[in-house]
Amino acid sequence: RERVRATVESTGFQRFITAVIVVNAATLGLETSPSVVHAYGPVLALVDHVALYLFVAELLAKLYAQGRAFFRDPWNLFDTAIVGVSLLPTAGGLSVLRALRVLRALRLISTVPSLCRVVSALLTAVPGMTSIVALLSLVLYVAAVMSTKLYGATAPEYFGSLPTSLFTLFQMMTGDAWSDITREVMARHPSAWIFFVVFMLTCTFVVLNLFIAVVVRAMDD
Amino acid sequence: RERVRATVESTGFQRFITAVIVVNAATLGLETSPSVVHAYGPVLALVDHVALYLFVAELLAKLYAQGRAFFRDPWNLFDTAIVGVSLLPTAGGLSVLRALRVLRALRLISTVPSLCRVVSALLTAVPGMTSIVALLSLVLYVAAVMSTKLYGATAPEYFGSLPTSLFTLFQMMTGDAWSDITREVMARHPSAWIFFVVFMLTCTFVVLNLFIAVVVRAMDD
Amino acid sequence: RERVRATVESTGFQRFITAVIVVNAATLGLETSPSVVHAYGPVLALVDHVALYLFVAELLAKLYAQGRAFFRDPWNLFDTAIVGVSLLPTAGGLSVLRALRVLRALRLISTVPSLCRVVSALLTAVPGMTSIVALLSLVLYVAAVMSTKLYGATAPEYFGSLPTSLFTLFQMMTGDAWSDITREVMARHPSAWIFFVVFMLTCTFVVLNLFIAVVVRAMDD
Amino acid sequence: RERVRATVESTGFQRFITAVIVVNAATLGLETSPSVVHAYGPVLALVDHVALYLFVAELLAKLYAQGRAFFRDPWNLFDTAIVGVSLLPTAGGLSVLRALRVLRALRLISTVPSLCRVVSALLTAVPGMTSIVALLSLVLYVAAVMSTKLYGATAPEYFGSLPTSLFTLFQMMTGDAWSDITREVMARHPSAWIFFVVFMLTCTFVVLNLFIAVVVRAMDD
Ligand code: NA
Ligand code: NA
Repeated sequence: RERVRATVESTGFQRFITAVIVVNAATLGLETSPSVVHAYGPVLALVDHVALYLFVAELLAKLYAQGRAFFRDPWNLFDTAIVGVSLLPTAGGLSVLRALRVLRALRLISTVPSLCRVVSALLTAVPGMTSIVALLSLVLYVAAVMSTKLYGATAPEYFGSLPTSLFTLFQMMTGDAWSDITREVMARHPSAWIFFVVFMLTCTFVVLNLFIAVVVRAMDD
Repeated sequence: RERVRATVESTGFQRFITAVIVVNAATLGLETSPSVVHAYGPVLALVDHVALYLFVAELLAKLYAQGRAFFRDPWNLFDTAIVGVSLLPTAGGLSVLRALRVLRALRLISTVPSLCRVVSALLTAVPGMTSIVALLSLVLYVAAVMSTKLYGATAPEYFGSLPTSLFTLFQMMTGDAWSDITREVMARHPSAWIFFVVFMLTCTFVVLNLFIAVVVRAMDD
Repeated sequence: RERVRATVESTGFQRFITAVIVVNAATLGLETSPSVVHAYGPVLALVDHVALYLFVAELLAKLYAQGRAFFRDPWNLFDTAIVGVSLLPTAGGLSVLRALRVLRALRLISTVPSLCRVVSALLTAVPGMTSIVALLSLVLYVAAVMSTKLYGATAPEYFGSLPTSLFTLFQMMTGDAWSDITREVMARHPSAWIFFVVFMLTCTFVVLNLFIAVVVRAMDD
Repeated sequence: RERVRATVESTGFQRFITAVIVVNAATLGLETSPSVVHAYGPVLALVDHVALYLFVAELLAKLYAQGRAFFRDPWNLFDTAIVGVSLLPTAGGLSVLRALRVLRALRLISTVPSLCRVVSALLTAVPGMTSIVALLSLVLYVAAVMSTKLYGATAPEYFGSLPTSLFTLFQMMTGDAWSDITREVMARHPSAWIFFVVFMLTCTFVVLNLFIAVVVRAMDD
């Protein structure tokens, strides 16, 4: 058991797995090209299967070596989830599952130390953002209900239902083509600019403060 | 009176009101779906009425318990205004008032402590922004008068009147489709790019400094 | 002379001039509405003339009171330039000069102390930006010459001449509709994305650092 | 040798070369105008040739004066590369090489001290960004493979092949017209918004942290 552990955690083994991930990411990328698939399809599929077997073997070895401790490392759970998705049967038109296989490339995050460090740092910023994100979601929800009731009949492609309005308002929050939509609604509701300008100003102000919260927290560290 | 106060300010009561707000926000959201209204319309209306009665009862109880101190807490005024809007008669096609009922969901801000804290923090940034916002408004006003006079005849849908120009320039300030509008005007006034580029640079510079003012203030705290 | 000086610099006189600026800004705004001009045209013109006479009188009084010191205060030069523009003859279709009259509203910056302070603070940020702005201009110029030579024949409305290219690249720098233009050029030059993506990344990186330079300078104060 | 060195590094010589670069940049800009080329073509070509000979002479003089040390200064390599491009034969329709001649204007960066300092400062920010840029590239690659597989058939002009998807996702990352593309895909895949909203949020979050990393590093200096 100690020997398995030593092997699994050795730098050489880590590098080997990293190389397998990179090669597999490349073959999954090549698979998007019909001409490459036509010429080398079986080779790509073989590489993909070998990579998957290696990933499963690696995880089982780690599980055997670390025992219960395996489940305490969130990166192990991350790796298990990603490899697990690839093991699901892809029959029945579930092309989404086939597309999800490329998520394996994200395993580079757990195997390359500098990426791992960056992502861990990013994740420490998340708790400090919860309240402002909750506030932003509340503003978005309220604005979506209002806009659906007020403009749903006028511009059904943008505000026809609550989910549609949520998407449209999220789009406006990113500043993308918000004025086109506003002008279209204003053709029927001339005072609609009040709603949208207030929404834009509120969101910008809250997002700006979300940003500041993250910067200030980063400065303190 | 003390007993009413103790009840109103108890954690259990606060949680109950929070739950009512969440449920009411959900039913107001469901009301945007014609099929749900068709199937469960009376239930949604009942929940809405019960929630409204509870909110009114809560505010009256608070008013009775706190006396004049009630009006000194801005959150009480906020709650009263929101509930008051729901009590206005919605007859006569004032669908806007019906749509405003969802603002009740914003009461979550005053009942959930972490949201309350975030919003209070956001509001402390406002006084430090007044001068720059005044400057930005002045620049916007001057640019709107100029663009209405110069380009009102060329592009009436964008600069036909002062309010239209104000909206268009606010849109340009957010960077949304500003070049399309500029190119359209430039077709008739080849040197119009001077006006718009100067406007864009001025606004970006002022907004950048608005941003910095807020960041620097946040750092000091 | 001392008496004129005391009068001109008294708070009451400053407030009076501020009120005149605000009223004049309002009448210049109202002049953009044909219906208002039709009904109250002569009144607006009268207010405008009276305001102009007052501004000229104020500046002459200041000049008399302060002597040569008058020209050492940049705000006096600013005011003189703005009032001077209004005195130019507007005959001969120079509607631009008429439109420039609204710049008088900017005099609020010199008469309202809080605005004056904000603008002075903004201007202190300018010297620290010179080098990066020069670098950005150089990048823009080089990219404009290259894009005119490479894509001028393909997309003349965007890259037909050096000024056109400069405007288009400034637009792309602000992120407005840059992908539409790139896709249009890529239809003929499939590798044009290299040029535009490198340009976008370079500009974003330089602007980000321009931003940081301003923030860091603001922090130090 | 010492004399050549003294001459080459003298302020006067540096200013002369700077002037040549500016004049050459101007003539290369003028060359984009067909009417100017028609009238003064030979003059422009002459200036261009003289400037090129001067640049080559300057570099050879520097190389002679500094010996091996010449290759240790990255700015010398930068200058050599830029001048080298201009010496390549431009026959055979390689208009790209002709367009690259304007890169000579970038030599101003190495001859003007303040620009040189700014660019050196910018470049010190690069190492601190490597990990986050690598993470962003990984996210972009994974998203590009997934979107090609999922939406390649639905919207081939945006997701038809891996390079096309990479460009489209880079575009979406900059916020340009991302909602148009998402709506187009959603017409066939109603749940596509999940993919794109998650992608937008992830990218914004990572870019925000890239930004913070650069700001925090700049603060420390
Ligand atoms: Na846009
Ligand atoms: Na945009």
